Amino acid sequence: MSTNQRESRRTFLKTAALAALTARARAQSKPPNIVLIYADDLGYGDLSCYGSNIATPNLDRMAADGIRLTHFYSASSVCSPSRAALLTGRYPSRVGVPRVLDPEDPGGLPDSETTMAQMLKRAGYATMCVGKWHLGAKPGFLPTARGFDSYFGIPYSNDMHPRVLMRNTEVIEQPAQLETLTQRYTQESVDFINRSKNGPFFLYLPHTFPHIPLAASPEFMGKSGEGVYGDVVQELDWSVGRILQALKDAGVDDNTLVMFSSDNGPWYQGSPGRLRGRKGDTYEGGFREPFIARFPGWIPAGQVSQSMATTLDILPTVARLTGAALPEKPLDGVDIWPMLTGQQQEVSRDVFLYFNDAYLQAARFGQWKLHVARYNVPMFTPEPARGRRNLPLRPELYNVVQDPEESYDRSDRNGAIIADIRARVDRLIKTFPEDIVNIYNDSMRRKVVYTPPDALPVEDAP
Amino acid sequence: MSTNQRESRRTFLKTAALAALTARARAQSKPPNIVLIYADDLGYGDLSCYGSNIATPNLDRMAADGIRLTHFYSASSVCSPSRAALLTGRYPSRVGVPRVLDPEDPGGLPDSETTMAQMLKRAGYATMCVGKWHLGAKPGFLPTARGFDSYFGIPYSNDMHPRVLMRNTEVIEQPAQLETLTQRYTQESVDFINRSKNGPFFLYLPHTFPHIPLAASPEFMGKSGEGVYGDVVQELDWSVGRILQALKDAGVDDNTLVMFSSDNGPWYQGSPGRLRGRKGDTYEGGFREPFIARFPGWIPAGQVSQSMATTLDILPTVARLTGAALPEKPLDGVDIWPMLTGQQQEVSRDVFLYFNDAYLQAARFGQWKLHVARYNVPMFTPEPARGRRNLPLRPELYNVVQDPEESYDRSDRNGAIIADIRARVDRLIKTFPEDIVNIYNDSMRRKVVYTPPDALPVEDAP
Repeated sequence: MSTNQRESRRTFLKTAALAALTARARAQSKPPNIVLIYADDLGYGDLSCYGSNIATPNLDRMAADGIRLTHFYSASSVCSPSRAALLTGRYPSRVGVPRVLDPEDPGGLPDSETTMAQMLKRAGYATMCVGKWHLGAKPGFLPTARGFDSYFGIPYSNDMHPRVLMRNTEVIEQPAQLETLTQRYTQESVDFINRSKNGPFFLYLPHTFPHIPLAASPEFMGKSGEGVYGDVVQELDWSVGRILQALKDAGVDDNTLVMFSSDNGPWYQGSPGRLRGRKGDTYEGGFREPFIARFPGWIPAGQVSQSMATTLDILPTVARLTGAALPEKPLDGVDIWPMLTGQQQEVSRDVFLYFNDAYLQAARFGQWKLHVARYNVPMFTPEPARGRRNLPLRPELYNVVQDPEESYDRSDRNGAIIADIRARVDRLIKTFPEDIVNIYNDSMRRKVVYTPPDALPVEDAP
Repeated sequence: MSTNQRESRRTFLKTAALAALTARARAQSKPPNIVLIYADDLGYGDLSCYGSNIATPNLDRMAADGIRLTHFYSASSVCSPSRAALLTGRYPSRVGVPRVLDPEDPGGLPDSETTMAQMLKRAGYATMCVGKWHLGAKPGFLPTARGFDSYFGIPYSNDMHPRVLMRNTEVIEQPAQLETLTQRYTQESVDFINRSKNGPFFLYLPHTFPHIPLAASPEFMGKSGEGVYGDVVQELDWSVGRILQALKDAGVDDNTLVMFSSDNGPWYQGSPGRLRGRKGDTYEGGFREPFIARFPGWIPAGQVSQSMATTLDILPTVARLTGAALPEKPLDGVDIWPMLTGQQQEVSRDVFLYFNDAYLQAARFGQWKLHVARYNVPMFTPEPARGRRNLPLRPELYNVVQDPEESYDRSDRNGAIIADIRARVDRLIKTFPEDIVNIYNDSMRRKVVYTPPDALPVEDAP
């Protein structure tokens, strides 16, 4: 396609989307249904539309019917915090869930926070959560206490004990049988769609897999040619296809926004694609995830966008689309509806923060990502002991568009960019709880700066 | 190029190489010179001919003039052991250098081992080492005690102290100035070539960079557009071009085998390309390296080979080519001359072992790589403490040709392959020193096996 052709296509898409929006806005009185499918530990490179050898035809078709983002971020690289951010539109360390929750933890996502389910329930939505919750396992913190009418699933990771399957607040199976789990999650979701089709409804389907231990039903085992991990991903893909079909069968396909993503990068298995790092890292492989959205008539088909978006954006986007009242607390996300519909290529946003636990370690603004500190980074160490474990480095700056592998630190000649990102981080971090601010200030004071040899000509050193 | 065209080209290359070999064998009485250039911590993806954004025109041209391998392995993913293997043709844990040596270590590569320099010196070669030695810093372990007529360089890593520059056994600069080091190494190498041009000679040039701290001379700083790491790599590339030119100027270009590789994967900076893992890991990114060889008239131009080779192979290959007598101890490498010259696509070889320190962790045979144990692997851990740091896994099997990222464990359906590799490892490991055998047996007894859910249908489980 020539530049001109691309330009006309873009103009066409924008016009089409606007026309569709206007037509809808006139004709439509029924608020749209929301289906949010969330994988667990799925890597950026694990779907065939993102370059994997694992065939995922249903997700590929969903992307072809809608939009696929290549710079979509989770707000954490581990389970509980990423879910806290997804459901509140606020950073995990802001809402008090900076780390993975244990089944025995007495708390969870604090009651002072409003979840997307609570927001939509107030707007008249039927709501259900099917799958891995991981925002508190004690009564008062389970999904049914946080805006969901009903719940079915394992309430935390499948490698945690006791491994129980719950319906609402009751344990119905122990140990939960893993190999049929995706099938059962799918059936529960389809049942919910069928009984809620007069809508509006919100289905939140955070899958248990491909988090380890891996398991798939017998008809998927050994079929992918890419090991059990591939088999499990293919069953998730099947599940997506089944849910899309159920929406069609229920006659609500054209009034439902369906989104697919994952909580964080791959763990032992799975592929981050060309990205550096994995689950738990603040490199891109820990945070960048597939994101696919489909809404026939609203989201033009066949879009692939490099524009940046994050899980923090989903709540404000859903609020705008559904007309639900936003939670009262300040949000960290922005409405990306204009981007999804092709009306705007980018949406304006502040710096995006990469936390490891309560420790701010990196920030992205535009094409640039600054690793501000190495404080507490789980980092490769070449040799045990020897006193060289935490080799001091100066802050690193990567152009994550040109260099998604974060291979070549560009901090040597870009002092102005570093200063700008630092200033933005300094402003934003002040709005966080005091302990988070203190940790940040402390890490900045430690100034882990690598001093190059005296004679080295360094311009614009940060 | 069509399959037929490729086939004819292949046949042509083989015929040409054979003809050249025969002609040479008749006409040539002078043994060839050997130049071995070795980078430090350079990643598989750090040269433009291996996909990097860093422009490396001299190495790209060297590859175009000869052969470039895409499955070439170092025998270790850290400095000292990889050099011990390179210079002896034997596994580092076999020769007593399983880990990185400290400047204060009293020993080094044991005197009972024969280095490539000793082998060539006995065959009448002039020998010089220019650069990072790292096989012992005390008298008796320095290059001049191990077969090199002369030495110039920093005798260990540039992040170790005291940072001294030595000529032979004397410290001539302290602290060694890093920014002009590559220039000085290059000039020393060129001087050696010029004074040895009546040959035969062996130049071993293990560069100090791109090991951190990074430094380049002023004319390279800020020029690569890929940060200081890119600048440093470009100066190494310049150095290669300078040496190739010196060989031409000295009239020995057509009687010199020049090889280029690196000791292990990238550390903080640098790119492993699509490979998983970095320096210190037993994933491919720690062990797989660029390898480029050039010998006009012998190695046909323009070859890119996926055939496997390792640093262990260099000594036997050089012995065959030079007619030098092999060391008496059994070697782990094989002669890859038939592969480099295009006479054979593959050479027959035993299983290749990936050690971390004294711990055998993985083995490759054919396209398959078996991670036999997770004992002591420096591995990503998602959360501090919590007792889940060393999550037990069953052995993992990857097809590293189809899946260079080691993303999808294929152990579920390939019991026969696993058993075959295990048997080969069991046979080979028995030839190692007793402590290495004991560690291996112990790790096998610990059987870190992940047990899947009861009902999971696993065929051919290992």
